[in-house]
Amino acid sequence: MHTLWDERYALRTDHIGSSAIRELLKLTALPDVISFAGGLPAPELFPIDKFKEASEVVLTEMGERALQYGTTEGYQPLREMIAKNASKYGIQISADNVMITSGSQQALDLLGRIFINRGDRVLVESPTYLGAIQAWNAYGVKYVTIPFDDDGMMTDVLETRLRTGLKFIYVLPNFQNPTGVTLSRERRKQLVEMANAYGVPIVEDDPYGQLRYEGEHLPPVVVLDDEIRAKEVPIYSGNVIYTSTFSKILAPGLRLAWVVAPEDVIRKLVQAKQGCDLHTSTFSQFIAYQVANSEWMKTHITAIRKTYKERRDIMLESLEQYMPDGVEWTHPKGGLFLWASLPNNLDTSTIFRSAVEAKVAFVPGGPFHPLGGGENTMRLNFSNAKPDLIREGIKRLATVIKENIQ
Amino acid sequence: MHTLWDERYALRTDHIGSSAIRELLKLTALPDVISFAGGLPAPELFPIDKFKEASEVVLTEMGERALQYGTTEGYQPLREMIAKNASKYGIQISADNVMITSGSQQALDLLGRIFINRGDRVLVESPTYLGAIQAWNAYGVKYVTIPFDDDGMMTDVLETRLRTGLKFIYVLPNFQNPTGVTLSRERRKQLVEMANAYGVPIVEDDPYGQLRYEGEHLPPVVVLDDEIRAKEVPIYSGNVIYTSTFSKILAPGLRLAWVVAPEDVIRKLVQAKQGCDLHTSTFSQFIAYQVANSEWMKTHITAIRKTYKERRDIMLESLEQYMPDGVEWTHPKGGLFLWASLPNNLDTSTIFRSAVEAKVAFVPGGPFHPLGGGENTMRLNFSNAKPDLIREGIKRLATVIKENIQ
Repeated sequence: MHTLWDERYALRTDHIGSSAIRELLKLTALPDVISFAGGLPAPELFPIDKFKEASEVVLTEMGERALQYGTTEGYQPLREMIAKNASKYGIQISADNVMITSGSQQALDLLGRIFINRGDRVLVESPTYLGAIQAWNAYGVKYVTIPFDDDGMMTDVLETRLRTGLKFIYVLPNFQNPTGVTLSRERRKQLVEMANAYGVPIVEDDPYGQLRYEGEHLPPVVVLDDEIRAKEVPIYSGNVIYTSTFSKILAPGLRLAWVVAPEDVIRKLVQAKQGCDLHTSTFSQFIAYQVANSEWMKTHITAIRKTYKERRDIMLESLEQYMPDGVEWTHPKGGLFLWASLPNNLDTSTIFRSAVEAKVAFVPGGPFHPLGGGENTMRLNFSNAKPDLIREGIKRLATVIKENIQ
Repeated sequence: MHTLWDERYALRTDHIGSSAIRELLKLTALPDVISFAGGLPAPELFPIDKFKEASEVVLTEMGERALQYGTTEGYQPLREMIAKNASKYGIQISADNVMITSGSQQALDLLGRIFINRGDRVLVESPTYLGAIQAWNAYGVKYVTIPFDDDGMMTDVLETRLRTGLKFIYVLPNFQNPTGVTLSRERRKQLVEMANAYGVPIVEDDPYGQLRYEGEHLPPVVVLDDEIRAKEVPIYSGNVIYTSTFSKILAPGLRLAWVVAPEDVIRKLVQAKQGCDLHTSTFSQFIAYQVANSEWMKTHITAIRKTYKERRDIMLESLEQYMPDGVEWTHPKGGLFLWASLPNNLDTSTIFRSAVEAKVAFVPGGPFHPLGGGENTMRLNFSNAKPDLIREGIKRLATVIKENIQ
C-alpha cells in the first residue's frame, strides 16, 4: 500500500536496523524448536505467588496512587531501596543518583540520547550486547572495539584505544552478554586506572551481577573507580554510570531497570525520559517494590542461581559430549549465556537455517560484532530450557554442525 | 560535583527542555494546594476492583507469559481488540496496523524519531500539546502554527501553511489539549481535503475522544480521509496516523497507548521501539486486556463522562460567578481541560506564584505556544479535583487575578 508517509522517513531510520535477535526469535518460537536463542529467564522461576500477594496489597492499600501518573525519576521508595542495596556492594549513593527506566534497553537509549553526537567514538567489547549497538546506532555512534579472552576485555591493548579519543567506554564486566566471560579483578583495576588517566568515563552494564554460580564476587567497576580517590570510605565519584535491571532477578515482563549516575546526569536523563515516555509504569514499580523489598529476595536469588548453575553445567557437559573437534566454547561463571566458536570456514548464520529445521535454535554471533567478523560464532542461552531439552538440543546442534564440518 | 560527564553532553540536549508542566507539578503537589495544573484523571474512578480481578486471573492463568519478555508490537489479543474497536468508529484496520506504546508520549517520540529530520516543518495548532513539543524538539523540528477559535484550527488559513512544505500536520480534533476546543465537522472535511490536495499526511492525536459530555460524536479525521477515496465501504488509506490511549479511560499508571498506522510505518515504529525499550510491559498489557475487553467498559466510560461533565459544569459556573471582567474561557464539550485568557497585559507565569501562595495552581499558557506568545493564557484541568474544591479553587484564583488586574 502506497501512502504519503513512504517518502517521508527521517535519515536516521537508515541506521535503525531490525534487531537480529528479535527477528530470529520469531522463527525460534515455532513449536518443537528447542531454543537457545533468546535471553529469556526460566518462567517457572517467576515468583507468581509473590506477584499475586503484591498486586493485592498494592491495589488494596494504594490503588489510586499505583494507577495514577507518577514522577519521571521513578517511585521514590523503589529508588531508595536501590540506593540502599547498592551501598551493600560499596556504591555509596542516594536515591537522587537513581533513575528508574523501562528496562535496561531504555537506559542505554537515554544514555545515547544525552551523550552521543554523530561520529562520537564509544569503546565496546567485541562482541558486545546487541541492544546497545541497536540503541546507539540511531545516534550515529562510531564503535572502537576491544577483543576479549577468558578474563574479559584485553586491557593490554586498551591504551591504544584510549588514544583515539573516546566519548565513553561501555563494559559488561560480569558474565558478559554474549560471551559469558567475566572481567578479572586485575583487569577491572587496569580499566579504571587507564580510563582515569585519559579522563574517559565508563558505562558499566550489570544485568547479571547477582547470578554467579562459582567463584568469588568481584567488586563492580564503579566501586574500584571510587576507591582510586578514596581516603577512608570511597564516595561515588560519578565517573562510572552503572545500570542494572529487575528482568533477571524478578521478571522481564515488568520492564524495570535502573541507572546510577551523578545528579547532573540524572537530571538530563529525566528530561530526556520525559520526552520519551513521561515515566515508567507506576503499577509495575509499586509491585516490584512490594516483591523485592523483602528478605525473601535472597532465597529467591539463591534458587535462581541453583537452577541456572545446573543448566549451565548440563550444557557444558553436553557440549563436551556431543560437539565435534574444532568447536570451542566459553565456561561462564554466571549469567545466562555461553559463546561457541566453530571452525573459521563455517558461517553460523547459514547453519542457523539447518538448525531450525533440525528443531534447535541459537543466535548467530556476527551481529554482536559492531565492526563485522565473528561469522563462525554463536550465542547459546542456558537459562530458559529445562535440563532434558538442553541435552537434546545440544545433541541436535552438534549433529547439524558435524554435517557442516564434513 | 564535577564529573567526566560534564563536558560530554550531546548537542541535542540543548534542545531538551524540562517539561514546564512536570516541573510545576512538583510545586502544585504541596499540601492544601487545589491543583488545576495536571492532566490527572480522577483516581476515585479507577476501577480498582476490576484490576484486582484481572491481576488474579492473569497471574493464575497465564502468569509465566505475563511476566516474560514479549513482542515489540504488543500483546496480540490487545492489538486485535483495538483494531476491532476502531472499526466501530469506521477505521477499517487489522491488528497489523496497531502497535502498543508505553503511553501516548512514546507514540509521539517514535513518530518524531522515524519522520523528523532537523529543520523539517510540522504544522501544529497554537497552542498545542506540550508533550508533542517536548518530544519533537529533540529531533530539531521547526513548527508552523495555525490559530484556533471555538471550532478548532482555523482552516481558512491552512492553505498558506500547506504551501510552506510540511512533513506532516499534527491535530488533536477532540477537546484539544490545552484548549478543550473541538474541530468542527466542516473543518475536519476541509483539513483532509486540503491536506490531500497538497499530499501532506496527518497525525491525529485522540486521547479524549470517548469523553464527550454533550453534542454529537464527530467522525475522526482518519475516517473522513478514508471516505475521500471510498467507493462503498471506506478502507484505511494510511495517510492519517491515529493515536489514542488507555490513560484516560482506564488508568495512566499502566502507561499504555496505541498507534494506528500503515503496516510499513508500523514496521519502522517497531524497529525504533526495539532500540528504545524492547517492548511495553507485558504485565500491564495482559491486565489492560482483561479489564478492557468487556462490555463493562461501556458502563465505566459512562460513569467517567458523568463525573467529568459535572466537574466541567461546576468549573464553568464558578468561573462565571467569580472571575472579573476581562477574563475569558472556552466551553469544552468533553475532555479534561479548559483554557482561560486574561487581559493582554497580564502574565500568567508571574501570577502562578501568587496563585500557589493562595493555594491554587494552573499551568501558564506560554509553553503551549511553540513559537511564543500566549503569556496571558492558562490551562485549567477540571477532571481531578472534586466539586467543592473546584468551586473553592476558582474562587481563590479569581481573587489572585483581581489583585493583578488592579
